[in-house]
Amino acid sequence: MIIPRPVLLFIGDASEPTFAKTAFGLRDWAGEHVVGQWRLAGAKVDLGLPELAPAAAVAAGAKSMVIGIAPVGGALPAHWVDAVCEALAAGLDIVSGLHTQLGATPAIAETARRHQRSLYDVRVPTRAYPVGTGHKRSGMRLLTVGTDCALGKKYTALAVTKAMRARGIAATFRATGQTGIMIAGAGVPLDAVVADFVSGAAETLSPEAAPNHWDIIEGQGSIFHAGYAGVTVGLVHGSQPDAMILCHDPQRRTIFDLPHIPIPPIDEAMRRYVELAQLTNRETRFVAISLNTSALAEPDARTLLRRVSGEHDLPAIDPIRFGADAAVDRLLSDFRRAA
Amino acid sequence: MIIPRPVLLFIGDASEPTFAKTAFGLRDWAGEHVVGQWRLAGAKVDLGLPELAPAAAVAAGAKSMVIGIAPVGGALPAHWVDAVCEALAAGLDIVSGLHTQLGATPAIAETARRHQRSLYDVRVPTRAYPVGTGHKRSGMRLLTVGTDCALGKKYTALAVTKAMRARGIAATFRATGQTGIMIAGAGVPLDAVVADFVSGAAETLSPEAAPNHWDIIEGQGSIFHAGYAGVTVGLVHGSQPDAMILCHDPQRRTIFDLPHIPIPPIDEAMRRYVELAQLTNRETRFVAISLNTSALAEPDARTLLRRVSGEHDLPAIDPIRFGADAAVDRLLSDFRRAA
Repeated sequence: MIIPRPVLLFIGDASEPTFAKTAFGLRDWAGEHVVGQWRLAGAKVDLGLPELAPAAAVAAGAKSMVIGIAPVGGALPAHWVDAVCEALAAGLDIVSGLHTQLGATPAIAETARRHQRSLYDVRVPTRAYPVGTGHKRSGMRLLTVGTDCALGKKYTALAVTKAMRARGIAATFRATGQTGIMIAGAGVPLDAVVADFVSGAAETLSPEAAPNHWDIIEGQGSIFHAGYAGVTVGLVHGSQPDAMILCHDPQRRTIFDLPHIPIPPIDEAMRRYVELAQLTNRETRFVAISLNTSALAEPDARTLLRRVSGEHDLPAIDPIRFGADAAVDRLLSDFRRAA
Repeated sequence: MIIPRPVLLFIGDASEPTFAKTAFGLRDWAGEHVVGQWRLAGAKVDLGLPELAPAAAVAAGAKSMVIGIAPVGGALPAHWVDAVCEALAAGLDIVSGLHTQLGATPAIAETARRHQRSLYDVRVPTRAYPVGTGHKRSGMRLLTVGTDCALGKKYTALAVTKAMRARGIAATFRATGQTGIMIAGAGVPLDAVVADFVSGAAETLSPEAAPNHWDIIEGQGSIFHAGYAGVTVGLVHGSQPDAMILCHDPQRRTIFDLPHIPIPPIDEAMRRYVELAQLTNRETRFVAISLNTSALAEPDARTLLRRVSGEHDLPAIDPIRFGADAAVDRLLSDFRRAA
């Protein structure tokens, strides 16, 4: 799946930034492919981008409009359907990461047909995947993994990719979720793949590559989540990571939507991930710990990172706040051959 | 999904018993629901059951015909399609565990419509499942797990269920694969569920039950299989097993279709499964080891079982050869409260 770019970000009449994660992700990580935002009357979320209605966006070069916000309840409200149809009529394809397929709304399907525009449902797998085999592939791979869901695996992978490329290292971000796919323009919606093929889909996502090329793979879920651990396991096995970064939120004591399930200590989490990953890569290792320190004042955040780094003999980073360079330094020193 | 019974077993013109696993499984474990077999000219596989063409099977009370054999290449050969249509015309529903849906063959879909018969694709999920939560459910659960695929998890679960019921214990076999579903008449085709919902599907499969009722859950895959481990992990977490039986083939050194991946020692395998299962049931434990000793002479098999039992301080059984009673004895002594 290659998404037509550049894009217009649709944020409807959203009032809560938390529902606009996709829009913020694209602004932050694929800003060069974004021409502007389209907000309907009443919107309280503002990305700080040029305000463009569909026709103006087309004039500015836009090829598609991304639904940048998750509607409450999951279904598109009627006035958003009208907006999507207006964008189609103006000449834009539509990109959505919602569970409900765009074409399931008759007005959208009909308008797309009439204007010969395409509908991209990035959460729907567009191809069949094989069963994973664990056969070694050339090239190097780093996977971000987590003690929980939703604590920075995607941002960490994007920040590491950016820091590596800034140093001239061949590195490719590999997306496994809807926002990541929109940012990268391609990827595998791993949580929508049939269970037997998750590991094989992950193998497909990071194919054989030059010996010193790094795929930086976006993690999904957590092996400590009672609902999603199977997805994480398939991703770890299929990714065959040479290196892993553990993502962790020091404020959380339990899995975020499962308060009866405790989050294990960092060293226990790393031991479990290494044991798991060794099935397809005996040499796997952690190269950094990525902490989400957003709840802490800067001095406290720096103190925490120093302490965690010392305790585990690994760089501890908050890539959003202080960059990912320490992790890249460690990666390069651990894998000289491949850097 | 409830399959209409009794059934006629269709084995086409199969020449290899290994392709007829579903037919043998139904004969061995649901024989009271089988009226006979239907073999086409050239068949070399013989279940030793009455030979009945569809009309005769209907006269004998049959409600459906089960495709008891996996065609080479996965697609139904043309002369099998004719046979299926003959069965539909005679008044039988059709039950299939193939990847290809029956209705995808136009002649079958059309004949079923004309004769108002139903097509049951047991490998296709018939409902949506929730995301797993890990919330504790009432009732007791035993799960069979394996060091590899295809080494006796289904037969062990069936044998344990039978041995428990023979002692008057409330026990229900819970099927997770196509043959198991046909034997039980219901279940979840776990390998066909979308990855995010495997654990939730497993939770649905063994719902809350009376405190002393045992669900005996058919295992799938292995955490040591590079392709299928994610399915196994979701099943373990969703099953919340109080007890597990490790299934193992002492002849195998590597995963059966992945010769580059070694099978770990029994104690290592049990440690890994316990660690995994503790996420949703802190009290989980192994109650037996089930060995497939079919390659050994009987005295050697008995010697091996004694040795393995002594090494791991657990009953070691070959349920097909010597029964499952030792495992049930251990289960009862470990869980007096619930027995």
